[in-house]
Amino acid sequence: MTGTDRSLQAGSPGAAPVVVLVQPQLGQNIGAVARAMKNFGLSELRLVDPRDGWPNEHAWASASGADDILGLAEVFATTAEAISDVGRVFATTARERGMTKTIVTPREAAVDLREAMGQGINCAILFGGERAGLGNDDIALADTVLSIPTVPGFASLNLAQAVLLTGYEWLLSGAETPARRLHYGDAAPASKEKLVGFFEHLEAELLEADFLKPPPKVPNMIRNLRNIFQRAHPTDQEVQTLRGVVRALVGRRQRGWPDS
Amino acid sequence: MTGTDRSLQAGSPGAAPVVVLVQPQLGQNIGAVARAMKNFGLSELRLVDPRDGWPNEHAWASASGADDILGLAEVFATTAEAISDVGRVFATTARERGMTKTIVTPREAAVDLREAMGQGINCAILFGGERAGLGNDDIALADTVLSIPTVPGFASLNLAQAVLLTGYEWLLSGAETPARRLHYGDAAPASKEKLVGFFEHLEAELLEADFLKPPPKVPNMIRNLRNIFQRAHPTDQEVQTLRGVVRALVGRRQRGWPDS
Repeated sequence: MTGTDRSLQAGSPGAAPVVVLVQPQLGQNIGAVARAMKNFGLSELRLVDPRDGWPNEHAWASASGADDILGLAEVFATTAEAISDVGRVFATTARERGMTKTIVTPREAAVDLREAMGQGINCAILFGGERAGLGNDDIALADTVLSIPTVPGFASLNLAQAVLLTGYEWLLSGAETPARRLHYGDAAPASKEKLVGFFEHLEAELLEADFLKPPPKVPNMIRNLRNIFQRAHPTDQEVQTLRGVVRALVGRRQRGWPDS
Repeated sequence: MTGTDRSLQAGSPGAAPVVVLVQPQLGQNIGAVARAMKNFGLSELRLVDPRDGWPNEHAWASASGADDILGLAEVFATTAEAISDVGRVFATTARERGMTKTIVTPREAAVDLREAMGQGINCAILFGGERAGLGNDDIALADTVLSIPTVPGFASLNLAQAVLLTGYEWLLSGAETPARRLHYGDAAPASKEKLVGFFEHLEAELLEADFLKPPPKVPNMIRNLRNIFQRAHPTDQEVQTLRGVVRALVGRRQRGWPDS
């Protein structure tokens, strides 16, 4: 099929960019690409002139659960046919080419992709084959070059890794995952009342044990101690545990054991 | 070696976090990790109790040029020994654990790592083995959990991919790569004088050809035309080419060829 029957509009609001592999070689790499796509919510795979034909059993062997993506993959004879229904095209390259074209990072590409797809524009990302990457004629079909930042002189990523990083940025650009959160498992943070109860318990015991002295330094010592435990954001259960620790240590001293 | 002779201070201002693989299984995955590290400027690899011993020839076979990292990799019996000289530890996990711990994305972790290493604090990132990831005892040694956002229900990444995404974020957090740039290859953008010269040439020819009319609409027609070419950010050479195109088309009309 040539794709000429498709609309330039993405089908659904949840649509993701199309991944186009141009002249990929090894089936196992195509499978690894499908797996990386699935990790990050990409689902539409197109293959331009795959060297070993299609379908390719090695792809299924390495897709690890992304068989659905392989099963729906479409094959085209040329890059132009593969992107005929697409409104914006990114071409991934590692090497500089002598072309005048805007170059973006995967992160910036993801912003562009969200913006374009939000307008209902179908988008595609081209990835070249394992040996030499995209040809200059493929890049000339693209609106923008996508270049993955690496250490200079060690830029080579394998095909699935390039798709992985691009997909990762795509997912993150729309993700609701908070960048930082304190995960409490099945527990909940202790109320401040319980925490302060523990502080007062500890401080009373420390006064009793003659640890908090001399008097002018005590307020600051107490603040420092409280900050240590405050910073740990303990749960109810952990506050109980800490109280048990204090009680146990006090009992040990009261029973006259060595402090060691 | 146990690492107890090392300082908590990172050795040099360019230092990067240490990658610690806890009970890795396949040598080829250790090699792929080294390669991913090298792509993104990580260089120090530590192995805790590698299943198949060390050195492992399969690692070298898959490292593709990151042999230096493998050659310097150190082996430890326990996670605690591997991080003895480290001041801040991140543990990568995909599964939720019943632990109270801060969870960050790789991007947020990179910010933390830059900040900590800027203070001279040695940092490490723990990655678990292929089969089951990090154990809860390993995670309890970490300050922070690093969790890579994925599509729910398809979270499994292979070891090298997890290192790749983490290294990518590390590099980007310090990178000077602009997110977007117009790359001119060997050329340079045309001066505005040359561009305007072309505009005026084109517009004169279009007036001559009776294209620019009626007069009230001409200013807007000219602005629209200029915007099209302006948006292309042409080089000197491209402006010359465009002038040639105009001349050629004019010559064709003047010679009385059909307009087709």
